[in-house]
Amino acid sequence: MGNVFEEIVGLDKLIHEPARLAIMTILSTVESADFLALQRLTGLTSGNLSVHLSKLEEGKFVTYDRKIVGKKTKTQVKITSEGQQALEKHWLQLETFREKVKETKSD
Amino acid sequence: MGNVFEEIVGLDKLIHEPARLAIMTILSTVESADFLALQRLTGLTSGNLSVHLSKLEEGKFVTYDRKIVGKKTKTQVKITSEGQQALEKHWLQLETFREKVKETKSD
Repeated sequence: MGNVFEEIVGLDKLIHEPARLAIMTILSTVESADFLALQRLTGLTSGNLSVHLSKLEEGKFVTYDRKIVGKKTKTQVKITSEGQQALEKHWLQLETFREKVKETKSD
Repeated sequence: MGNVFEEIVGLDKLIHEPARLAIMTILSTVESADFLALQRLTGLTSGNLSVHLSKLEEGKFVTYDRKIVGKKTKTQVKITSEGQQALEKHWLQLETFREKVKETKSD
């Protein structure tokens, strides 16, 4: 079982952090989301949400989509294909780990 | 879906942190484990493992069991019932969240 535990220890903290796991999962279910919608869904303060989004953008997991609507610029956040893959992998790692531990317990 | 995302944002970081999630899960499968076994299974350095165990002990999630074997004191780490409950709740929160998001996607 050594390897599965080491795999969990090595989980990508950029996604694993609770707020970012929530943000990434929200973004994986929609084409794009605006800042206020993300704030409403996560309950994060504007400042905290900004910090998390910046980290995710630095990691190339999200991108900003700026559209001009009338005279205003509307900013939407999107998950990148790299982010989508990393998120899927992350959940799969958690699920696989959970299953393996359950099997060990019931042996 | 607002509440489930907020629940994920609010996950207990004491357990959620990758190394501590691995340590707690290992301890949940055995009566007790010694320091070296935990180090071997997680691949953590002695220093890192100590820090994580101290945090878990402060949170009352693990406890130390000291036994005198021959002329030596042997220290074993055990998960507390509080820790066991918190870990089960944590995995359940993750699994429930994952299931709800899957349902939303397939709707």
